[in-house]
Formats: sequence, C-alpha cells, structure tokens
Amino acid sequence: MEPQELNEFCEALKKEVISKVSDKIPHLESSLAVAELTVALHYVLNTPEDVLIWDVGHQGYMHKALTDRLDDLSTQRTSGGLSGFLKQDESPYDFFGAGHASTSISALTGVCIADKAKKVFRRRVAVIGDGSLTGGQSFEALNHLASIDTSALVILNDNDRSIDPTVGALHSKGEYKNYFESLGWRYTECKSGNSIDVILSVLRGCLSYDGHHVLHIHTKKPDLSPPKSYEPGTTFQWWAAKEMETILYDYRDVHVISPAMFAGSGFAGLVNDHPHRMHDTGITEPHAVTFAAGMATAGLSPWVHIYSTFLQRAIDQIIHDIALQRLPVVFLVDRAGLVGADGPTHHGVFDSGMLHDVPGATIWQPQNGDELQAMMREAAKIQPELQGPLFIRYPKAKTTCGVPVEHSDLTQIASVGSNSLLVSTGALSAHVNQELFDHVHLAQTKPLPEAFCELLKGYESVVLLEEANGYGGMSGIISDYISKADLEVKLVLRKIPDTFTDHGSRNELLRGLGLIP
Amino acid sequence: MEPQELNEFCEALKKEVISKVSDKIPHLESSLAVAELTVALHYVLNTPEDVLIWDVGHQGYMHKALTDRLDDLSTQRTSGGLSGFLKQDESPYDFFGAGHASTSISALTGVCIADKAKKVFRRRVAVIGDGSLTGGQSFEALNHLASIDTSALVILNDNDRSIDPTVGALHSKGEYKNYFESLGWRYTECKSGNSIDVILSVLRGCLSYDGHHVLHIHTKKPDLSPPKSYEPGTTFQWWAAKEMETILYDYRDVHVISPAMFAGSGFAGLVNDHPHRMHDTGITEPHAVTFAAGMATAGLSPWVHIYSTFLQRAIDQIIHDIALQRLPVVFLVDRAGLVGADGPTHHGVFDSGMLHDVPGATIWQPQNGDELQAMMREAAKIQPELQGPLFIRYPKAKTTCGVPVEHSDLTQIASVGSNSLLVSTGALSAHVNQELFDHVHLAQTKPLPEAFCELLKGYESVVLLEEANGYGGMSGIISDYISKADLEVKLVLRKIPDTFTDHGSRNELLRGLGLIP
Repeated sequence: MEPQELNEFCEALKKEVISKVSDKIPHLESSLAVAELTVALHYVLNTPEDVLIWDVGHQGYMHKALTDRLDDLSTQRTSGGLSGFLKQDESPYDFFGAGHASTSISALTGVCIADKAKKVFRRRVAVIGDGSLTGGQSFEALNHLASIDTSALVILNDNDRSIDPTVGALHSKGEYKNYFESLGWRYTECKSGNSIDVILSVLRGCLSYDGHHVLHIHTKKPDLSPPKSYEPGTTFQWWAAKEMETILYDYRDVHVISPAMFAGSGFAGLVNDHPHRMHDTGITEPHAVTFAAGMATAGLSPWVHIYSTFLQRAIDQIIHDIALQRLPVVFLVDRAGLVGADGPTHHGVFDSGMLHDVPGATIWQPQNGDELQAMMREAAKIQPELQGPLFIRYPKAKTTCGVPVEHSDLTQIASVGSNSLLVSTGALSAHVNQELFDHVHLAQTKPLPEAFCELLKGYESVVLLEEANGYGGMSGIISDYISKADLEVKLVLRKIPDTFTDHGSRNELLRGLGLIP
Repeated sequence: MEPQELNEFCEALKKEVISKVSDKIPHLESSLAVAELTVALHYVLNTPEDVLIWDVGHQGYMHKALTDRLDDLSTQRTSGGLSGFLKQDESPYDFFGAGHASTSISALTGVCIADKAKKVFRRRVAVIGDGSLTGGQSFEALNHLASIDTSALVILNDNDRSIDPTVGALHSKGEYKNYFESLGWRYTECKSGNSIDVILSVLRGCLSYDGHHVLHIHTKKPDLSPPKSYEPGTTFQWWAAKEMETILYDYRDVHVISPAMFAGSGFAGLVNDHPHRMHDTGITEPHAVTFAAGMATAGLSPWVHIYSTFLQRAIDQIIHDIALQRLPVVFLVDRAGLVGADGPTHHGVFDSGMLHDVPGATIWQPQNGDELQAMMREAAKIQPELQGPLFIRYPKAKTTCGVPVEHSDLTQIASVGSNSLLVSTGALSAHVNQELFDHVHLAQTKPLPEAFCELLKGYESVVLLEEANGYGGMSGIISDYISKADLEVKLVLRKIPDTFTDHGSRNELLRGLGLIP
C-alpha cells in the first residue's frame, strides 16, 4: 500500500471496528484515538519480528483488527471469544500482554537487554498513555532503560485521560520535555497525533537513529459513550456511593482516596460535591496507600477505594505503613471476586488470601447492598478506635436491596437441623439457596466472630464456600481455628481452583466453577 | 544554643553515637553522613509539632540521639532494645515509621492534606536518599504533592549510594534540577551538606517561603565498615553465590536481576565478572519483575534475586506479568523467614502465603546449603521448560554443609513408626531433632509431590511446621489437599502467630515462637 492510501484505509477500518464492537465503549474510544498511530506503526514496523508493546492493552482494538482478528472482534470479552486486552496466547503480534497499567517500558527494557545479549537488531517500541505514566513503575523503567546502551522508542499517547482525567503536576504543567530529558531520553513532540501523514513522518524520524527516544503525540478520543450511570439501587457500587455520600456529610474528617478509579467507583458525583475531600492520586496504588497512612497519622479518617486486582500493587504498603503502625484506615475493596468480561488480569481473586494474612486486619464481606451500607456506617463509627486497616470487600455485581439493616458479623440463613454447616461469605451468601444444610453467612471473616467459633463445635462437617483463589483467606483462617481448637470437624472447601479464570460473564463463570447453582 | 556552638556540639554527638553503636555499621555511616543535617533540622524545626519524616529510617541514629535515645542506642537491634529504624511506637519524634524505601513523600502528602483540612500551620519536611528516589513511589508522590496547594520541603540526601551505588540515568546524568522542576518543585542545590553553617542557612531559606521545595544536598558517608564478607561455606547466601557463579558459566542465557540488593545477596563479586549479565535496577521491585518478564519473552533465562520482604512490592507483577503469561523466571527469595535484628519491617514472613496462591508457581525451600545448590542447578536445567515462576526461598541464616546432593522434592528425616508425621520445610527441617514422630522435609511445597500425598494417607495426625505468617502457604496447600482427598487426618499447625514479630536474634525469635527447640 502506498502512504497516500493509508488515510482512506484507516477510515474504513475504523468503521469496521466500530461496527463490530458494542461492549466497553470507553476502550473502543481509546482504540480509535490511536487508530492513525496504530496504522502508521504497523506500516512502518515489521511485526512480530519488530517489537511493539502496548501499555494496558485496552487501546488495542485497531491493532487486533490489523493482525488477523477483525472478524472475531465481535466475540471480544465474551466466553470463548477474544480477550478485551492484548494477550501473548491470542496472537504472536501481542508481544507482551497486559491489563494493569505502567508495565510496558519495563518489559521493553527486558527486550533491549535480551536483544543486546543475543545480538538481535530490530525496532523496539512501547506505547504508553499519559494516565499510565503517572504509575511509578514507568519512572523506574525510564530511569533504568536510559542507562543501558541500546535503542528504544517510547510513544507517549497523550489524550489527557486515564479513565478519569489525568492528574499530577507533570501533566497539568505539561513539562514532559524536561521530565524525559532529565531521565536521559531524547524528546519529540507531535501535536497532530490523529494525522497519519504527520505521524508516519515523525515516527520514521524517531526510528532512524540510535538511542533512547520518546515521541509524545497528542491524540483525541472520540466521544461515543453514553454517560455512565448505574441503575439506582441495583449494584454494590450504587449502594456504596449512596452511603459514602451520607458518611461524608456526617463525618467531617473522612476523606476518600482513589488511585484513578473514581469513575468506576460510582463516586464521581461526590467528587464534585467534596472536591477537597476526594483525592484522585493517579494510577498510583503504592502512593495512595501510604498517602492514606500519612493522613491517618495526622488525624484524618481516610477511606481508600481500590479495586481488588490493583490492591495487589499496594499490599506491601498495607502491611508496612498501615498495619504495622496500627493506623485506622478503611478500605473499600471494589471488584472483589470474579469481574466477568475483563478476565484474568482483572479478577479480584487474590486479595482475600493476602488480606487475611495481614496482622490486625478486620475483613467484612457483605452479601447485599443493605449489608454493605450497614458495614460502611459501622466502619465510619468505629474508625477512630480502629487499631489497623478495615477492609470491606464487595464484587462488581448486581445486588438485591431491601430494608436497612444493622451491621452483624454473622447471619443465620438456614437452620434445618443438619449435622453439616454451610459457611459462605460475600455475595455468594445471597446466591446459595438450598435447604439441605444449615447455612450461615459469615460477614466478618477476620477476626472470626466468637459466636461463629462456638457454632462450629456443633457440627460434624463444614462446607466453606468462597469466591477466591488460593489456600488462605476465609477457608484458611477457619481451618487454622479448627486445628488450634482441636475440633473434630470435617472440612469441605469450595473455592476457585488454583488456575487463572478466563473471561466471560460473571454468573457464567461462577456457575462453571460450581460456586453458584 | 547559639548557631556557632552547633559545630562543636555535632562533633561531640557524633563521637558519642559512634561509641554506642557496634552493630550494622553501614547504617551508622548513613547516619553520620546526615549528622550535620540532623542537628540543623532539629535546631530549626520545632518537632514533634513540626513534621519530620525520614525515608527508610536507617539513617536515624543521630536523630535518635537528639530525641532522648542516646543512652539506649547501644541496645539498638537487640531483643527488647531500640529498633534499628524509626518507629512511631518508640518516640513521638518518629513521626512516621519505615524500613522499606521510598514512602516518605507519600506520607508527607497525607500530612499536607490533613493539615489543610484541619487548618494546622507547621513546617513539614521529608528527607529521602538518592537511592530511595529510584523507587517509583517517590515519583508518584512528588507528582501528586506538587498538584496540591500547600507547602512542603523534600530534602534529597545525595551520597551516591543506596546500599549499592545508585543506578539510573537521572543520577548518572545529575539532571535533578530538571527532574524536580518538571514535576512542579522549586529546586535548590547545596554542595556542602556536611557544613552546619551552610545547611542552616539554606534550610532557613527553603522554609521561609510557601510552596513545594526540594533541597538537594550532597553529603559524604564516612567509611567505617570492614569489607563485607561471608565466612566461606557458612551461610545460605554464600552457597547461593557459589552456585550462581557456576550457573553463569554453564548457562549463557542466564541473567541475574536485583532491585538494588546485590551487596546483600553475596553476588557482588559476580557483578564484576559478568557486568552485562548482572542487572541492578535500583530500588524498583515492580520494574525488576516486569523487566525479567520482558527478558524471558525475548528468549533469555532471567533469575531475580529479591528479599522476601521486598517481594511484597512486586506480587502483582509476579501474578500479572509472569504467572499469567507462564514465563520461565527463577526467583531467589532471600531473607525468607525471620531476619532477626532488622525486625518487623524486614521479616520475610508474608511471601509464602502470597506465592503459594500464584497459579502455576513452583516453590522450593532448602534445608541447607547443599540442598540450595542442588535446587539452583536443577532450576537452571529445567528453566527452559518452566511454565511459570519458580521460587527458591532461603533464610538469612547460617547453614551446615556437607557433600553435594541431588535435588529431591521430599526427604525422609526420621522414621520411627509413629502414627503422627511431622512435616517441615526450609531451614527449620535441619533444626528439628526429635525421635517422637516420623519426620519428612518437604522441599517442594508447591505443587505437592505425589509421593508426599501418598505418604499422608498412612498417618492419623500430621504436624506442619512452617516459618511463615498467615493462613495459606505450606499449611494451607496441605489442608486443601487433605480436604479434597477426603483423608481422615488430624492437622496440627505450628507457624508464626498472626501478629508482627519484633526484632531480636533469629534463633531467639524462633525459640520464643516455639518453632525450634
């Protein structure tokens, strides 16, 4: 194809991609913003021999379309279909998979070292957004890579946003040139990131000489999304936001922190009402958690809203800065459990094991919106007396709602006089509907409520039902108690098996794993 | 005290501090490098009302001496004595505790927000080293803090080192001014960081006006340490380094990565021999792990040497970049288990729970130096076929050595025909010496060896002995197996209890916890 034909080709391809994608429109928008860049990159590079790494990978729809997956785009994010992100298993053109932000330059650094060692000469490019650049790992990688004698191109795709608008002084002051140059990178800016002709020419320029080069391009996201809204009263997120509103009114010391995920939290409206008490820190989980620890030390009552899968990035700070110092910080652990269509990079299935191992932690897992609200009210009330972190874990899921309840750490759901007890926690408790066993909902899984420990003594066998991977978590803490209390109780564990769970609808996945009927 | 008296005072105090400290000389050196700064800060600030946060806290000996702890300095790092780091519980002058690097500016950000909300006016200072500044969390915090309308002073204490010399382009090019200014910070440099008069004057200058200010001071560490050396053949670290040397010779694709801890690994000599295959990435655990993933994707065989306590900072990257992509990366998890004098910020007691929950992981835990070497040889041999990460966990401990052994996932230690089986792993296996029960050393704790699973069936009760916190780990995976295989086996768990363990000598601590006789 001649360069002058690319424009027309790109426009036609965009239309095709739009026609195939109906789910997750924000990711489609991100992909369209880099449509021209994607076409230009594939025109100039000889992938998969040349290396092209996309940060996060949510902007890869055009890339997928150009690499033999256009027809399958409509299957994206559905069971058995294409992933919503890039994935090594899916295509040799997906050189390095992702889903979490800020990893691309680190991976690129590894490739540079490998190519040097193996005397491989090829073009190596990573594309990272201005949102992902707020994550400290990108700084670590830029600083390291520039100290290696090699050639690499980093393309900063700047559209002023992660999911929420990009925060931080670097972006607001626009001092990217000084920033990159201070870290040893040559810097080129291109304001016309949606013009193929222009990109093609600067791209060729940047790739034509050796060394470390950043190409900063400005792109524009189209606006195809309907305004995001949760149908009132139908999701855990909606109930959380509603209660947060009340808490912010009743407790003036409460501040809310989010590492760039207020949009997903349902709290966006609260940011407008309380701009000085709602803190978007950027895609910076480690900083967000230590920031909360600093606040608590200075006398505020911080709440951290964080997705389970991203909390993994801050477990050290939770242990080292919050638990060890016994600071009273409340965590809203959102997207705990299987998230559905986003798949294995995003399932919130590892935090439970991690959090139950944190000394001094309290862990609550509501079965529905009413219980979530009761927990939040209780958390706000007891926060000044807390001697460590309190975690409230809730899934990305619809939930029933009814009359307001009081917080309770244990609820009897069924009592049929069996010698087996079914114990569940979180949203699964509301899904199980059987009359074969006695059934309790264990809302507080750490520390174990005394009444629950007493209750265990009356049963011959106990079935533990838990939406988590791993060997600790609720099942671990109960096994430990049974062993220490020397009870003669037989345990049956029903958890997510020790593998990665693919994407699909949440209920489909839960059913496939035998966790719901 | 008049300013002109401070010099004499500082010199006298240095001598006193030196006379009290005989352990951990590198930390004493770091403290002496900031002796003048510490005296000047305490002269100018009105702590604890004013806020003074030290990053890591290992450079706090002068600070401790100035805040009522001079006499107790000799008890530092011993059981019941002062901590080797700063600690909120120890003194109101230790505003924010630490032990891990790069957290101070995040904590400072939290304080700024709290003071703003509570209308508190005071001076707020964080002191961070050039090594800690390589950690991405410091970038996240600088970027965020500068976007808040407040006043804060960050002092960059630049002595060209973390424990190893500081790496990265920012430091080697010395472009700190551009770096900080690009992130919205006013920048002052002071080359005479060991002159009280000079520091006093620039410090007052920096504190006299509002806004975000970085004071970059250059300080000099005195050289009091004898060259670090392990007595040959006495520690796990020595055996690891010895074997690493052979592997680097035999396997040309093996590269070794360390987030700024080659000094502690025992590998320092190997860096000189293989400068292009030994990669110090700076204090950058997340980057180091994804960097390894990039290397593996491009066909090298990366080994990551990392302390257990710092691995907590990269568990997301282990899950998301390595395990999910099934990349063959070998991890030498050093300082696994209780580390002794460094105390609760450094005990390697949480990684086991985290790692056993990683799908597709293999986990080996040697009981002595011979076994560690055999595991490393085996790891190098099977690395190309690995479908995920392989972790070799070993403690900071002395170990016996004998004749070379072959790698084995299970070793019978005692067979007395009891109906109880004692199962231990790692270095504890070599410590237990009893003839009451049958005893096996489970060298491979994930996946469980088939022979071990078979063995379990023959016993009425099983005692699990494990040097780890938490509810998963070895005990979790064995409980899970017993439940799934429906065995009638009674479990007795002997682990570290669910609290933080204080500092003291390693054997003292293990004995106190009942883990060794």
